[in-house]
Amino acid sequence: MEIVVLAGGTGGARFLRGVRAAAPEAGITAVVNTGDDVTMHGLRICPDLDTVMYTLGGGIDEERGWGRTGESWTVKEELAGYGADPDWFGLGDRDLATHLVRTRMLDAGYPLSAVTAALADRWQPGVTLLPMSDQRVETHVVVTDPDSGGRRAIHFQEWWVRYGAGLEPAGFVQIGVDTARPGPGVVEAFTAADAVLLAPSNPVVSIGTILGVAGVREALTASPARVAGVSPIVGGSVVRGMADRCLPVLGIEVSAEGVGRHYGARSDGGLLDAWLVAPGDGATVPGVDVREVPLMMSSPEATTALARAALDAAGV
Amino acid sequence: MEIVVLAGGTGGARFLRGVRAAAPEAGITAVVNTGDDVTMHGLRICPDLDTVMYTLGGGIDEERGWGRTGESWTVKEELAGYGADPDWFGLGDRDLATHLVRTRMLDAGYPLSAVTAALADRWQPGVTLLPMSDQRVETHVVVTDPDSGGRRAIHFQEWWVRYGAGLEPAGFVQIGVDTARPGPGVVEAFTAADAVLLAPSNPVVSIGTILGVAGVREALTASPARVAGVSPIVGGSVVRGMADRCLPVLGIEVSAEGVGRHYGARSDGGLLDAWLVAPGDGATVPGVDVREVPLMMSSPEATTALARAALDAAGV
Repeated sequence: MEIVVLAGGTGGARFLRGVRAAAPEAGITAVVNTGDDVTMHGLRICPDLDTVMYTLGGGIDEERGWGRTGESWTVKEELAGYGADPDWFGLGDRDLATHLVRTRMLDAGYPLSAVTAALADRWQPGVTLLPMSDQRVETHVVVTDPDSGGRRAIHFQEWWVRYGAGLEPAGFVQIGVDTARPGPGVVEAFTAADAVLLAPSNPVVSIGTILGVAGVREALTASPARVAGVSPIVGGSVVRGMADRCLPVLGIEVSAEGVGRHYGARSDGGLLDAWLVAPGDGATVPGVDVREVPLMMSSPEATTALARAALDAAGV
Repeated sequence: MEIVVLAGGTGGARFLRGVRAAAPEAGITAVVNTGDDVTMHGLRICPDLDTVMYTLGGGIDEERGWGRTGESWTVKEELAGYGADPDWFGLGDRDLATHLVRTRMLDAGYPLSAVTAALADRWQPGVTLLPMSDQRVETHVVVTDPDSGGRRAIHFQEWWVRYGAGLEPAGFVQIGVDTARPGPGVVEAFTAADAVLLAPSNPVVSIGTILGVAGVREALTASPARVAGVSPIVGGSVVRGMADRCLPVLGIEVSAEGVGRHYGARSDGGLLDAWLVAPGDGATVPGVDVREVPLMMSSPEATTALARAALDAAGV
């Protein structure tokens, strides 16, 4: 059995761990958002790929949900000693080695997909990790500058990590998305899939970014597999992250139903065959098999059960 | 008073600390060897510049004589986790921040001299740190490969750090030295100098490399200042480092006299007006004022006294 999962960072990574546990014999391909990627201190950083890799490879800091377990921050402190910008990004020492290897390989001409495979060779995540694209796509957020009062676009990481999503977003600009192509294996994965799952990741800056790469949405809708999505919204609130700050920018209601309708029914040109919402979030999404199941990934067992429910909804 | 000191790494750095203590009112310019510089893991590393900067800036690990005090090795361990080569270089976490800042600035187009000044702005070494050249010069050592038995040239750092200078050197190749030019301020420093000192650094791969940059030797010999050198050899042995492995390659006797004669009398086309050797090492170097003084930099006081003796010998 072949399963494709579209995923962002922490939520997507945990969901993937559930899928791996729920379907240990399956071939699992994670198509991961790279729109959060950023270059800092000369290092190319891929937060979502790394979060998925560390989570599935046993290296994640479980409490934070990002970065490495047992992390230290010596380099970051020393960079601050030099006054090197930016100083607000959580650049851990262990994590930094990943970025050094990645940057060196990218500089040597390897595409991100090959670099990702090389890094995953250490972590053995048990799934095939595919960047959504080998081309650079970077999400920027249009905000009102807190100092100047003028409009400007800042990198998603600056908006999220530096400002804690506190600056009101006026829009999202996904630089490079127009010319990006699906990464090697992405289209083929959808063609070969028996099930396609949308992780409970941010519908705008994670799932939306992946689907914004020309050819990905088409490959998904052309897949012979059923597509089941998991709502990132429970009881009208975001479980984790800042989707509640992103959805209104696109006119999407912050509710399981709102996101389900945004994704839309496959039979109607949308993405979904099935949509998983939390008990009590009963949503109506025309043409979509909406199911109420516990969505909180509060334990390995709960996460596996959620993944099992998603696979059921996808008919496998 | 203006003092110019030619220096390599640990010995040169400690000597410079003595000069700073002996002549606190003087302007001191250190012309530092960059022939040991190397790129590893995509980072540009300048061991001698950093050793001088950390030593004079209070950041050095005094016991090791290189790298940062309170150093940790997390990134190095993680790089090894990825199997990233090379794994034999002492790349500390604190130290790494220096290389990151340097590499980023070099990549942005700043010359090494400007980068060095920017880094020194944090450390306030109390001397003007000048790279011998802004152009890349890299010392390679011709050895017999321990595996293949064939001749090959390896980077000085590999010879010294990886093999502990254990491979018999057949020669030294200073890549880039033919086209390198003296760094900004180097020639001017000699012109303005009241005293020029050769630190007890390696005569071949430190002092020799600096003097190999076209124009440096000429600027030194044209200086109005007297030139005093300090022997790195005491009692026929090297005090620190591997000069005893380097000198024979050039046919130089491993003795204070041998090195003194190699440098030669300024009146005879050489470098020296005065030559400091250890008590009992009484050397004859025609045309040179040879003085026996304690050379061991075993304490701040001993180091300052040595520097004072060198300045005396240089006539200031």
